Amino acid sequence: MAAQKVFIFDTTLRDGEQVPGCKLNTKEKIELALALEQLGVDIIEAGFPISSPGDFASVQEISKIIKNATICGLTRAVQKDIEVAAEALKPAVRPRIHTGIGSSDIHIKHKFNTTREDILERAAKATRFARNFVDDVEFFAEDAGRADNAFLARLVETVIAAGATVVNIPDTTGYCLPHQYGEKIAYLYNNVPNIDKAVISCHCHNDLGLATANSVAGAMNGARQIECTINGIGERAGNTSLEEVVMVLKQHSSLNLYTDVRTELLNPLSILVSETMRVPVQPNKAIVGSNAFSHSSGIHQDGFLKESTTYEIMTPEEVGAAGSKIVLTARSGRSALAHRLRQIGYEFDRDAVDVLYQQFLLVADGKKEVEETDLHKLAEQYVPVG
Amino acid sequence: MAAQKVFIFDTTLRDGEQVPGCKLNTKEKIELALALEQLGVDIIEAGFPISSPGDFASVQEISKIIKNATICGLTRAVQKDIEVAAEALKPAVRPRIHTGIGSSDIHIKHKFNTTREDILERAAKATRFARNFVDDVEFFAEDAGRADNAFLARLVETVIAAGATVVNIPDTTGYCLPHQYGEKIAYLYNNVPNIDKAVISCHCHNDLGLATANSVAGAMNGARQIECTINGIGERAGNTSLEEVVMVLKQHSSLNLYTDVRTELLNPLSILVSETMRVPVQPNKAIVGSNAFSHSSGIHQDGFLKESTTYEIMTPEEVGAAGSKIVLTARSGRSALAHRLRQIGYEFDRDAVDVLYQQFLLVADGKKEVEETDLHKLAEQYVPVG
Repeated sequence: MAAQKVFIFDTTLRDGEQVPGCKLNTKEKIELALALEQLGVDIIEAGFPISSPGDFASVQEISKIIKNATICGLTRAVQKDIEVAAEALKPAVRPRIHTGIGSSDIHIKHKFNTTREDILERAAKATRFARNFVDDVEFFAEDAGRADNAFLARLVETVIAAGATVVNIPDTTGYCLPHQYGEKIAYLYNNVPNIDKAVISCHCHNDLGLATANSVAGAMNGARQIECTINGIGERAGNTSLEEVVMVLKQHSSLNLYTDVRTELLNPLSILVSETMRVPVQPNKAIVGSNAFSHSSGIHQDGFLKESTTYEIMTPEEVGAAGSKIVLTARSGRSALAHRLRQIGYEFDRDAVDVLYQQFLLVADGKKEVEETDLHKLAEQYVPVG
Repeated sequence: MAAQKVFIFDTTLRDGEQVPGCKLNTKEKIELALALEQLGVDIIEAGFPISSPGDFASVQEISKIIKNATICGLTRAVQKDIEVAAEALKPAVRPRIHTGIGSSDIHIKHKFNTTREDILERAAKATRFARNFVDDVEFFAEDAGRADNAFLARLVETVIAAGATVVNIPDTTGYCLPHQYGEKIAYLYNNVPNIDKAVISCHCHNDLGLATANSVAGAMNGARQIECTINGIGERAGNTSLEEVVMVLKQHSSLNLYTDVRTELLNPLSILVSETMRVPVQPNKAIVGSNAFSHSSGIHQDGFLKESTTYEIMTPEEVGAAGSKIVLTARSGRSALAHRLRQIGYEFDRDAVDVLYQQFLLVADGKKEVEETDLHKLAEQYVPVG
């Protein structure tokens, strides 16, 4: 069977922007939207138009400028929100309204102070209302991760009947384990009669560090859209990392799924988002961290230098990162030392490397990383034994 | 059935320290080891004694000072390594030698330039040799994530027969999907006759963002030790995050697994490690990021203020973080504004909040975050309408 496409729904500009201190102005949002389109994402969630005049303007301007990607605006399941979003999205070639309401009992009771039946009604009404403005309406069942599956199935069936083209199953609080989230999606495929009329979408949060695994589990069970952000930024511990899900699908061809993301742009875009939003990326972040392709221990360096695939499952070039680094520390071995010496023009035989290595360790124990200047000093002071 | 314990094997001081630029001196290592023991980890991997004189000294000093946790030293499957590790571990109350060799064909061929049969022999020999010095020997089957399961089962059987008390199944390159890693552990339980004589351990890397999910999948399939680091630091994209696996097991009582970690110390220790090693933690890091308990969007703030469990699955107190924050941005709603105004002493009725909210949005659109001083200004300039 031919591989199936998973649509990438980027919400860096909406859910990602909900990071404290990350608010972007319209100019910054347009710059990022253009970069996201170039990256090859299918849908750009550009903002939450009713939330502020600035966000309205951003969604409107992005709608004017982006030609290939679908532009999406968030709303609550409220008429006014939907009208305002529709207005902001008017210039878009491919507009999508994203509306929704809570689906777990804890949200229904504590946030909406209402009943399941009322939620079904409001959901259908909002979906139908949104369809008056656009042909593409996505419905989110907030806190679906903790919702009762039987009720969730009724809700999904209801909104698809009301015209939803995409149904988003958010694990809003980042609670689910991968097998649970996967089973939830499978349950919907087995219990929602009209499910083939819509795309099911994963929207996972990372509170327990499981967002990527949950999204992949969703896709393995039939979901064909993943909502994610560059660097995994977003409310609290953030959203699913775009770069992680994209590379998981690319690396694991047995899943028979693909995306249209140009992976060689992942690192440049990670840097652009980090700098624009002023949210640092930790060095050990998967795919886009500054150390993601650094090898500093001797065992790893030795293997890597013999054959890179012993310790790298992808190349830095594949994700647009600078080349793999051989960093010299007290944990490094002889082969890494010889390699780095060779790179700066010194060729020593095995015995010489042995002698140099002992001197190297004394230097290395005293500092975090041995630099090129230290290596020159070592090499130039070398006196053959005997 | 009573819940079963999962041993927490912390390798912050060994695999974690393999981060470029993170080298610690002995004094720093001792400080962290004491903090890890207080946290309640079961095993502290203190270093790789043969790698440098400094690392030898660190393992030796930690062995003298730690009384409750097991102290572990890493070695290759080489006599000299094992002798040196045994020497460094001599003062330990509970010493463990951690030895091992590559198990995937790619490692066997490219790194060791040998055969599977030779690997079995070397593995058994190293294990037996290590047992001459200590009663507790852990064997690591490097790159087990990409190893052939049938060969891996033979290797595990061989080292258990040779005296290994723990067998570590590392996903060295961070390649596995959670269901694959889980199935690998299940395969070993079904195909290694003497497996009940050892503890099976998960050691996962985070190259695709799946380390936590893989470790949990391993534990769900019978592994009873998880190797991890504070903040997930380590070679390349790092190791499994201790704080994430511990909180997954705590939050999901249906797994029927527990650890002895005192979770309220997780955030203080995260800060200590980050500062000592000078590796920043990104704000959206699960559990220990500075934003992990921040709510900035209006929808979330409103729900959170009505009932915190609508958006929080754990409390900040549970993991030793500062209290949940309600951050005011252009994405915030009326209830958050009223809440923050109330906190600094202003009580307004609903109509007044409506008016203030419009003025607030104008301020918020112009800046990343609305501060307390802005709120005072807003409140003091308020004039009731009509």
